[in-house]
Amino acid sequence: MKAEIISIGTELLLGEIVNTNASYLAASLPALGIDLYWITVVGDNLPRMKEAIERAWGRSEMIITSGGLGPTEDDLTREAIAGFLGEEMAVDEAQVKVLEERFRKRQMPMPARNLKQAMVIPSGCAIPNPRGTAPGWWVERDGRIIVALPGPPGELRPMWERQIVPRVEGRSGGMVLVTRTLKTFGAGEALVDEMVSPLFASANPTLGIYAKPDGVHLRLAAKARSRLQAETLIAPAEARLRSILGDLVWGVDDDTPEAMVGKMLKERGLWVAVMESFTGGLLASAITDVPGSSDYFRGGWVSYTAETKIEAGIDPQLIARHGVVSAEVAEAMASTVRTRLKAHIGISTTGVAGPSELEGHPPGSAFVALDDGQQTRSFKVIFPGDRLMVKRRAVVKALLELRSMLVEKG
Amino acid sequence: MKAEIISIGTELLLGEIVNTNASYLAASLPALGIDLYWITVVGDNLPRMKEAIERAWGRSEMIITSGGLGPTEDDLTREAIAGFLGEEMAVDEAQVKVLEERFRKRQMPMPARNLKQAMVIPSGCAIPNPRGTAPGWWVERDGRIIVALPGPPGELRPMWERQIVPRVEGRSGGMVLVTRTLKTFGAGEALVDEMVSPLFASANPTLGIYAKPDGVHLRLAAKARSRLQAETLIAPAEARLRSILGDLVWGVDDDTPEAMVGKMLKERGLWVAVMESFTGGLLASAITDVPGSSDYFRGGWVSYTAETKIEAGIDPQLIARHGVVSAEVAEAMASTVRTRLKAHIGISTTGVAGPSELEGHPPGSAFVALDDGQQTRSFKVIFPGDRLMVKRRAVVKALLELRSMLVEKG
Repeated sequence: MKAEIISIGTELLLGEIVNTNASYLAASLPALGIDLYWITVVGDNLPRMKEAIERAWGRSEMIITSGGLGPTEDDLTREAIAGFLGEEMAVDEAQVKVLEERFRKRQMPMPARNLKQAMVIPSGCAIPNPRGTAPGWWVERDGRIIVALPGPPGELRPMWERQIVPRVEGRSGGMVLVTRTLKTFGAGEALVDEMVSPLFASANPTLGIYAKPDGVHLRLAAKARSRLQAETLIAPAEARLRSILGDLVWGVDDDTPEAMVGKMLKERGLWVAVMESFTGGLLASAITDVPGSSDYFRGGWVSYTAETKIEAGIDPQLIARHGVVSAEVAEAMASTVRTRLKAHIGISTTGVAGPSELEGHPPGSAFVALDDGQQTRSFKVIFPGDRLMVKRRAVVKALLELRSMLVEKG
Repeated sequence: MKAEIISIGTELLLGEIVNTNASYLAASLPALGIDLYWITVVGDNLPRMKEAIERAWGRSEMIITSGGLGPTEDDLTREAIAGFLGEEMAVDEAQVKVLEERFRKRQMPMPARNLKQAMVIPSGCAIPNPRGTAPGWWVERDGRIIVALPGPPGELRPMWERQIVPRVEGRSGGMVLVTRTLKTFGAGEALVDEMVSPLFASANPTLGIYAKPDGVHLRLAAKARSRLQAETLIAPAEARLRSILGDLVWGVDDDTPEAMVGKMLKERGLWVAVMESFTGGLLASAITDVPGSSDYFRGGWVSYTAETKIEAGIDPQLIARHGVVSAEVAEAMASTVRTRLKAHIGISTTGVAGPSELEGHPPGSAFVALDDGQQTRSFKVIFPGDRLMVKRRAVVKALLELRSMLVEKG
């Protein structure tokens, strides 16, 4: 099945918002066996909206629109679809009740203009919107499907996942594409490439390898008649990759380093503490982005000057001898914060976020250290990118080195 | 002048990347007097690329493409433009020299396939790309302009700003739209609305008011024949808004709270220190996102447990009496970190990031406190949104309350 996305809204053409709906929808289509060839963005303009729908109708079997379903005069998606199809809109009493109930709960009278959100056409039916006043439309005619969804991502996404995907699944007739990404850390791209090279010959699933800020990713992609068949093709390939890569694999698909590390710390009943220089609090913030992190995160210090490092307990002579950007100071920071905050593991960062250099080190130079009471280890890295990127990459490095230490401890 | 953007790349149709180039380009067009009616996304497919160019040629005077200028077989933008226009591509010797020089500097031989990046057509010329191997194209024919830019945003943006904008400026013949956003903090939307109501009658510039996470924004938008004329319309309206709003205005356009506060602290030679509970390091990280923050940021503590708060010097009886999520503990945190880290001003946060409640407070409940040695002030807020949003909003609140304190200190 060939699909086309039409994103509607003048704010998209003014660059006021980024079209994340299109990439969200696009990303979910391959798994449904649907091929996307076009995305069109058009403003809140009835003739141009009709023109876009007409063109899509001529070359695609499924048209997905987002936006233009609000209650105002600018919201014209219903009018455009009805107008193009030559169908009359009529009030759907069931939808009126849903809307009235929604306003009643908020103790507000329903404005008359919201009534247009309860309109449908004979070829269509309303798709409930649990998070907003704009129901979607599901329209079927002449072997084609039009799905109209509201623009706010918080409304569009659950409607797509819970109500559209189940209707579409298995209907596309196309080959379903299922992917599985294994995320590795601790070996370079060339080495990983060599390790997994026997699998590159596979035609289905195919194997791709990508260097990312959080390590080397391996992506298996299988095509089959059904999701289940595709998953059945992926499973043995994934098992084989895992047996080759072992502990290098730290996560899959949407896993984040902070969530994976958090899970391990919680399971083992271990506490961590951090002492950050140039990452300036971002490491602590990443750790505390995970719900429940208060079960394993003691806290941290951000020591942004040499003076605060000394006050926190770092030997001034060590700083004088090696400079603040050094393995020695990084290691002292990790072991000091571990002891002083009574944690099992201390982690530290020191480096140069940029744009200026420091102590002769170029921007991006960094040391990350870990101390678990038995051993102290530190890593020197030079990260590419601007100030914010360098901070972000150092945090990922610190979290994934923590993971490696936890794996080794067993 | 009517414009159309054609974004090229199969990765956009697979949802692997979000189309930020289109929104970046779109946002810059109104100031150039260019109207954007369409954005089309198409994959790396020659017939469909030509189809998109043909349609754009029929309805727009300016076509801006992004992507498809790399050296591989998949990169077909040059071929599509040349093919549609029926022109032959030929090697541009000057571009070959630029490319060879680029590879020579990296001490690599230039692969033969890169030669295609030095090709141009008779109606076009190459646009230098200082950050990559793909020069752009500027094509003029039959009263139409085609601009072809490479896909990586780090290459596209400087090329657009430094080389395309100057060529286009003043040529569009259309009305130029210039906007100016004043960002306020400290008064609610309704109050700001009432204060500035006399200006709402203005037709040019128009005035819009928007509630945002970092306060209430006022947006002036003027249309005129030239940028200068538009700016001349905006200036008195901006002056009038500023005289009404006074110190409520904390920044304009792209200003961030952390950069504005940083500038004030540096000018006054003041040092800050932070003690964070539920924001978990994000406040310190925001402060240190600003280059030069080591001139005014002493450092901070992240005290994620009651125990680490007590170890940091907070009275355990105060915690027992009021709970960690309280104005009293927030104020003690701010004054303790100010004294202990030898700063002029201490800032603190304590609250509930969620998703669970804490001490009977719902997720989003927060206290922010400031202490400058003379006075201590704290603010209770309940932020909407998920865990990450709540952290982010509390940080903005803390920074903007710091700004208000600095303004008052004069």
